[in-house]
Amino acid sequence: MASNTRKVRIGDVEIGGGNPVAVQSMTNSKTENIKETVAQIKELEEVGCEIVRVAVPNRKAIAAIPKIKKNIKIPLIADIHFHWEYAVEAIEAGADKIRINPGNIGKLDLVAKVIEKAKEKDIAVRIGVNSGSLHPKYSKEKDIAKALVKSCIEYVNFCEKLKFKNLVLSVKSSSVIDSINAYRMLASETNYPLHLGITESGSLMSGTIKSSVGLGVLLASGIGDTIRVSLSADPVHEVHVAFQILQALGLRSYGPEIISCPTCGRCDIDVIPVVEEIEKQLMKVRVPIKVAVMGCVVNGPGEAREADIGVAGGKKEGVLFKGGKALRRISTSNMAEELMAEIKKLIEDIEKTKEKE
Amino acid sequence: MASNTRKVRIGDVEIGGGNPVAVQSMTNSKTENIKETVAQIKELEEVGCEIVRVAVPNRKAIAAIPKIKKNIKIPLIADIHFHWEYAVEAIEAGADKIRINPGNIGKLDLVAKVIEKAKEKDIAVRIGVNSGSLHPKYSKEKDIAKALVKSCIEYVNFCEKLKFKNLVLSVKSSSVIDSINAYRMLASETNYPLHLGITESGSLMSGTIKSSVGLGVLLASGIGDTIRVSLSADPVHEVHVAFQILQALGLRSYGPEIISCPTCGRCDIDVIPVVEEIEKQLMKVRVPIKVAVMGCVVNGPGEAREADIGVAGGKKEGVLFKGGKALRRISTSNMAEELMAEIKKLIEDIEKTKEKE
Repeated sequence: MASNTRKVRIGDVEIGGGNPVAVQSMTNSKTENIKETVAQIKELEEVGCEIVRVAVPNRKAIAAIPKIKKNIKIPLIADIHFHWEYAVEAIEAGADKIRINPGNIGKLDLVAKVIEKAKEKDIAVRIGVNSGSLHPKYSKEKDIAKALVKSCIEYVNFCEKLKFKNLVLSVKSSSVIDSINAYRMLASETNYPLHLGITESGSLMSGTIKSSVGLGVLLASGIGDTIRVSLSADPVHEVHVAFQILQALGLRSYGPEIISCPTCGRCDIDVIPVVEEIEKQLMKVRVPIKVAVMGCVVNGPGEAREADIGVAGGKKEGVLFKGGKALRRISTSNMAEELMAEIKKLIEDIEKTKEKE
Repeated sequence: MASNTRKVRIGDVEIGGGNPVAVQSMTNSKTENIKETVAQIKELEEVGCEIVRVAVPNRKAIAAIPKIKKNIKIPLIADIHFHWEYAVEAIEAGADKIRINPGNIGKLDLVAKVIEKAKEKDIAVRIGVNSGSLHPKYSKEKDIAKALVKSCIEYVNFCEKLKFKNLVLSVKSSSVIDSINAYRMLASETNYPLHLGITESGSLMSGTIKSSVGLGVLLASGIGDTIRVSLSADPVHEVHVAFQILQALGLRSYGPEIISCPTCGRCDIDVIPVVEEIEKQLMKVRVPIKVAVMGCVVNGPGEAREADIGVAGGKKEGVLFKGGKALRRISTSNMAEELMAEIKKLIEDIEKTKEKE
């Protein structure tokens, strides 16, 4: 995917140039609250987050950067608006990349100071243009997508004049359509790695839908080198959702996939609680197995047979399938437990085999 | 969208041929439990569901069809597997459309009997091929998408020989990629209206992600005339998610859009509970207004200004925006209430204006 983009390094993570699409998130603690910020980043690391961004709105946040970095494993990006000095100081404090929205920094000679410092320290800069903070000179452009791209390209050209190409670009809008159009345009005009996101996309559910649609459409056409799902919710959800979008498109493997029927009047077993229980217990498992929980005989045995492990409902009992074959009948009363016990065995076997290899 | 597909009528709903993409769902009550099934369909109608499907696995369910129909407003589809007689009887009982998976009906002369009855009563038939129940003769085809399409087209050709073209087609897989590939192939080979879905897509969250990605990719390229989001969850969610996917792509207008920031270390107000409260209160509102809830000054005033109404956080208080202008400062302690009061006024004004027109 996106294999024709430039390779850019962020700490020890490479994006672009055919690397797997990297998943990032952003903390919502006050950055200067080092304990809380580190704790949040550790939670994010645990669910697979590969790059993390923190807001840097003041000098206390800058001072926190080296202390946070000492306690985390993944690269840290400093997010800066308005103050070019903060960007320069954040780079000096050890940020692995900075994100600026040049429109919020102001005059180009101030942007130049930031770029010179990034060049000196050899770190990447994301030019993150955003529909909510477009430069006033684009306020009359009716096509938001075009305005976002024009503004972004203008800054790219400026950076290139300074002989700086260590760039990642984003053109986020809170409108899914504007975002899709903007990224498509940008991808056709540059080969810098693209950071995808639908900005201010809303609550856990609404934001997940908007992000899955928007990022899904772009990723499916080969656009995107790193993604962030923005949700007004615990950032841990952002990572889960991001990986599930990538897994749906076969771009990353994240964890077990649960194939479960939507239940209908044909259902012989109570699928929903079984699915919820299995999903909860598999939340931290990263082995990419397929688990089927199916309510009846219509697609049940078919899906269960295709899955690594699964159960299909029957009149009084269910049938447990493993490796494509019916293993045994199980009672509908403790289906989740029985299925989970078999899943655990399967995961152990897979891990043992891996160790041997 | 999909304006070059044939028009097909389901009760009083038309799909295909440039009609808006219709949203459907399926009950999960026992169909023969008329009271429960009607109650569930009324709930679905209330959230905007336009077509509903019920499972018809036995003769009690067939007998329930006329009684259910008397109590609901939207067209009813009978979902039939295995028994061709049930399909014939469901049509006689007044189903507005039937869905069959011919591979589950069996021999073609039995399928013919169903088609002849549909022709007689002038109702549409969905040929719903499914990865979990593919005809055994395709079991060796490695490309599931190709197998789904081949099987579907085979039945389409058979129906056309019987001079029956009142068809809707689906080729669902639990794999997002297989589904995308199958529908793309199918759309290039036929002009029948397509019913999109990712089958057995999983729990509320996982299924929402897989469906949003899969249906999003297809809808964005103009494929799809009616959609069903399959979730192992209350079917009401299926309708909400379906409309939000369509709204994200500008294909349908469903209700208020909440633009809200993901919160970060820069946040001056507690965005998440405000968003949750506003979203809850607007759940049943169908006026397509844009509401912004933004935590700080970076994109806050920008987004709030572009929205119909919004709030942007500040150091001690927020600023309420309406129609692009700052209206007044509001305290951060009762932000949700103040914002909601203004939203209600706005909705009343919009509805009054509508009445006058």
